[in-house]
Amino acid sequence: MILDEPVRAAKRADSASETADHVIVTLSCPNRPGIVAAVSTYLFERGFNILEATQYDDTGTGRFFMRMVLNSVGGGCDLEPLRDGFKPIADTFSMDWSMRLAGERRRVMLMVSKFDHCLSDLLYRWRIGEIPMEITAIVANHPQSSYAHLDLSGIQFHHVPVTKDTKLEQEERIWELVRETRTETVVLARYMQVLSDGLAAKLRGRCINIHHSFLPGFKGAKPYHQAFERGVKLIGATAHYVTSDLDEGPIIEQDVERISHHATPEDLVRKGRDIERRVLARALSWHLEDRVLLNGSRTVVFAN
Amino acid sequence: MILDEPVRAAKRADSASETADHVIVTLSCPNRPGIVAAVSTYLFERGFNILEATQYDDTGTGRFFMRMVLNSVGGGCDLEPLRDGFKPIADTFSMDWSMRLAGERRRVMLMVSKFDHCLSDLLYRWRIGEIPMEITAIVANHPQSSYAHLDLSGIQFHHVPVTKDTKLEQEERIWELVRETRTETVVLARYMQVLSDGLAAKLRGRCINIHHSFLPGFKGAKPYHQAFERGVKLIGATAHYVTSDLDEGPIIEQDVERISHHATPEDLVRKGRDIERRVLARALSWHLEDRVLLNGSRTVVFAN
Amino acid sequence: MILDEPVRAAKRADSASETADHVIVTLSCPNRPGIVAAVSTYLFERGFNILEATQYDDTGTGRFFMRMVLNSVGGGCDLEPLRDGFKPIADTFSMDWSMRLAGERRRVMLMVSKFDHCLSDLLYRWRIGEIPMEITAIVANHPQSSYAHLDLSGIQFHHVPVTKDTKLEQEERIWELVRETRTETVVLARYMQVLSDGLAAKLRGRCINIHHSFLPGFKGAKPYHQAFERGVKLIGATAHYVTSDLDEGPIIEQDVERISHHATPEDLVRKGRDIERRVLARALSWHLEDRVLLNGSRTVVFAN
Amino acid sequence: MILDEPVRAAKRADSASETADHVIVTLSCPNRPGIVAAVSTYLFERGFNILEATQYDDTGTGRFFMRMVLNSVGGGCDLEPLRDGFKPIADTFSMDWSMRLAGERRRVMLMVSKFDHCLSDLLYRWRIGEIPMEITAIVANHPQSSYAHLDLSGIQFHHVPVTKDTKLEQEERIWELVRETRTETVVLARYMQVLSDGLAAKLRGRCINIHHSFLPGFKGAKPYHQAFERGVKLIGATAHYVTSDLDEGPIIEQDVERISHHATPEDLVRKGRDIERRVLARALSWHLEDRVLLNGSRTVVFAN
Repeated sequence: MILDEPVRAAKRADSASETADHVIVTLSCPNRPGIVAAVSTYLFERGFNILEATQYDDTGTGRFFMRMVLNSVGGGCDLEPLRDGFKPIADTFSMDWSMRLAGERRRVMLMVSKFDHCLSDLLYRWRIGEIPMEITAIVANHPQSSYAHLDLSGIQFHHVPVTKDTKLEQEERIWELVRETRTETVVLARYMQVLSDGLAAKLRGRCINIHHSFLPGFKGAKPYHQAFERGVKLIGATAHYVTSDLDEGPIIEQDVERISHHATPEDLVRKGRDIERRVLARALSWHLEDRVLLNGSRTVVFAN
Repeated sequence: MILDEPVRAAKRADSASETADHVIVTLSCPNRPGIVAAVSTYLFERGFNILEATQYDDTGTGRFFMRMVLNSVGGGCDLEPLRDGFKPIADTFSMDWSMRLAGERRRVMLMVSKFDHCLSDLLYRWRIGEIPMEITAIVANHPQSSYAHLDLSGIQFHHVPVTKDTKLEQEERIWELVRETRTETVVLARYMQVLSDGLAAKLRGRCINIHHSFLPGFKGAKPYHQAFERGVKLIGATAHYVTSDLDEGPIIEQDVERISHHATPEDLVRKGRDIERRVLARALSWHLEDRVLLNGSRTVVFAN
Repeated sequence: MILDEPVRAAKRADSASETADHVIVTLSCPNRPGIVAAVSTYLFERGFNILEATQYDDTGTGRFFMRMVLNSVGGGCDLEPLRDGFKPIADTFSMDWSMRLAGERRRVMLMVSKFDHCLSDLLYRWRIGEIPMEITAIVANHPQSSYAHLDLSGIQFHHVPVTKDTKLEQEERIWELVRETRTETVVLARYMQVLSDGLAAKLRGRCINIHHSFLPGFKGAKPYHQAFERGVKLIGATAHYVTSDLDEGPIIEQDVERISHHATPEDLVRKGRDIERRVLARALSWHLEDRVLLNGSRTVVFAN
Repeated sequence: MILDEPVRAAKRADSASETADHVIVTLSCPNRPGIVAAVSTYLFERGFNILEATQYDDTGTGRFFMRMVLNSVGGGCDLEPLRDGFKPIADTFSMDWSMRLAGERRRVMLMVSKFDHCLSDLLYRWRIGEIPMEITAIVANHPQSSYAHLDLSGIQFHHVPVTKDTKLEQEERIWELVRETRTETVVLARYMQVLSDGLAAKLRGRCINIHHSFLPGFKGAKPYHQAFERGVKLIGATAHYVTSDLDEGPIIEQDVERISHHATPEDLVRKGRDIERRVLARALSWHLEDRVLLNGSRTVVFAN
């Protein structure tokens, strides 16, 4: 029992604005000597200070990954000239790279089916500023009345019911919404429809699914019931990028909880909700902060 | 990505009604031979089947603790004669005991200050039937507008602001509300006012607080900042019964998460919200299912 | 930095003798009313006190499981008459049951291949009295010189090399050793040879294997390399009873640790050793204390 | 049950030689622009490739920390000229810094009292090459016969009994041993004597203690008994650098395990042994790989 304490992180506006001027740089390229020297010398000459930097050298594939957070020594930041000056370096090393302002919120579409525990959780974290993003739309295959107790005020809601026959045309509709709303990231927050190969390909590296099992165990339907039948002693959840290969996309985050013999499948579902919520929230946060880089069928996660 | 699966636990009405006829029995007494034989023979003769039973013999204090879940072999259940018949046995062994229907929802008052992550979480779990209870009222020392994005429809809300000068009279008001609403359990869901000794005594064994540290480390104010200063590698939260001895009440549940050197106090606050929510939810669930028995300054938790 | 403190648990002789007179009872049978009443009344009449009791009612299969620890109120304990008197009750309820003295150490054979981290760990726990057992023999498919730094004094060691051609006759040899040494429990402490169906059947319910993955993920060979390839974020180990169905036996215990993208397969192997050691030690301890009951393809674990 | 798999990490000689030519660089200094550019440009010009790099900018204190692993593009490595050339850069930025060959094993003295679970564990990890180090001596306040089941062949053993009256002169003896054996790192592997302020000061930043509690909870004697009395739901252990301020040194690593109401103090001691062993082993590994940097009363741990 403690007296009220004022905490910055819980104030929505502040938490984003604090770092609005920071620049987040990510890059990956074939490893060879001189990368860090070239990049850091360039940034120094342009008047930038490196606040955070992490790198990873995948000795198996020979690929190099790096993430940096910069601020301008002089304050303020004009990204365009920084990017332009960087291009020759990026070309020299054949880099995949990005530079963006930390304060620019990513545009995120949330998709959901009947169970809304992940949606509810993400909305809460968004409202208190824990996950800074622009929610472009909520897309559900159940009607809005299913989510009556959630405060959806100010958010576009689209009911896009899916049946076997309408699946492809409804995916057209979803893709249209993605483009119309300039959505960058799609979150399948317990959206229980398999995306077609086509849509999965279009959303490669920017569509995150929460799978309610500790993959690769218990792929397919009813994972908690599978876990119960097998008698495992821990259950888990997995957040991964969606690929056309079902339940096989690059894993971003996983977590587990201990269960015992007296847990019923319903108990597993209940415990699972807690795991799913926190695993998806972590994965989305890291994705939005450019902490997750694709490395073939795996990910590099510069977690904080 | 899995097709929709119907799950019983997520349907509010069902989850409670399934066990509405079950009887939960708890008892504690000085240990001596024959307790289990006497109790189980009595229940068998009355036509009850023991579905679950756990017991604990504290060899240090010589005290015996037991929790059972029963159903009537014939179906239905009239508690009064069962209780009356049990009294002589209880007297023989000097038992503290209770018998109640699992379907009888406990009456719970939620108290909150500025940070509403625990409140929001408990409301969600209550709405989907995960935590069956009757919410008698929400009592806050901030006005209702502070919680505008929460759906409080159908719940009494009382704004009871507290200052140094008004503390005792406001506690009178709170106690009145407890009695008026026939509240059985009070939850301090990040309510940041210390209860007076008087109120703490009145709510002994039925008032649960969530403390945002891994007690007994970091008692007092600003525990996350203390944890940061000390450089610990894990932070935690503690749910405990409130006593007049600040931060010293019997602990019901604790949990931790790993942090690293680059976590700021604000990061700790953010991580802490997740720990606080799940620790308080577990502690409250266990309390409401009569799984927590007081054992002096400690608890016996027959967790599921 | 703390001054020496004398601790009972670390003294080998004492830890066993303390409970030598206790009786451990386990039973399972089809559930029906009256089981607990019949059993507890019988024990009370025979002058026994129930120190610990846990039960589990598998509502899915209708089977009831129970474990009790008893002491004789008068002190001392003659098991034979207790068993004889219990038989009619056991017959009435069609029980599988056992009664034994806690002080009777189980006879355990340890089997090992090249990697001896689990063997080394079990030997240490045995020497300090943490895992009370009689080690009947160590059986290895590598010569004793491979384990030169382990103190094997006073323990039979058998080098039983296995090739494709000699497998069945060597299993004959192993089975002979089991019988000669009156071995009750066999532990495959990273013994890297698949048992034949025949030997697996003979050791049903009393042969524990440690599998170096979080089953059912990564069955088969080189699980850590599989885990690396799949990019999982947690790795684990599984202790299970051996059945003829490879990697499918009833799971006793599992645990996991977090890994990150920069972990190599060698790092996973290293981290895995820690998980394997503690998972196997827990599973064996629970088995030796009659805390693990078979429930079809699953286990009931009355863990402490 | 898996066929034997050859694994590099388990071969002692190889695991060290693989990285023998790598150079580990650590540095810390007041933060200002240009540090990374200056360092990485220097290393590039000298023909070194950065294999790993992590940095941390403590915005609270304005101090910058970095660790790198390098290899020479040409192969081989002569450290002296690399160090000499680096000095001007280090001076410019007022760096605390070190450069050493990964293959140079640190010289480590292990100190122990009665309980040898940490000692036994460290010796095992050392023998299989998991923790590469030169053990200069084992110093114990109990006679060598207390550790008869450990293979101490080839290791100096010194029995240095301590009483109130002999404490200071015995510390003289210990310090002499440190110097004679050119010991760099001292590990208090459950050495239950408080070091004097003088010796603690001489060993600042290179003496690691394992404390059997989750500090700052339960300082002082008998932490497991304190934990039992307080009724906590998790117990832990803490590895920290020794300072003259008892139980207050910079924390390197901590971990916890869940306990329940039926755990006795002896159960806590038993569970604690597992936690202590892994926490101390991790802390020592990280220290030996120059992954732990002092940051006032806290540490920066570039964990792998």
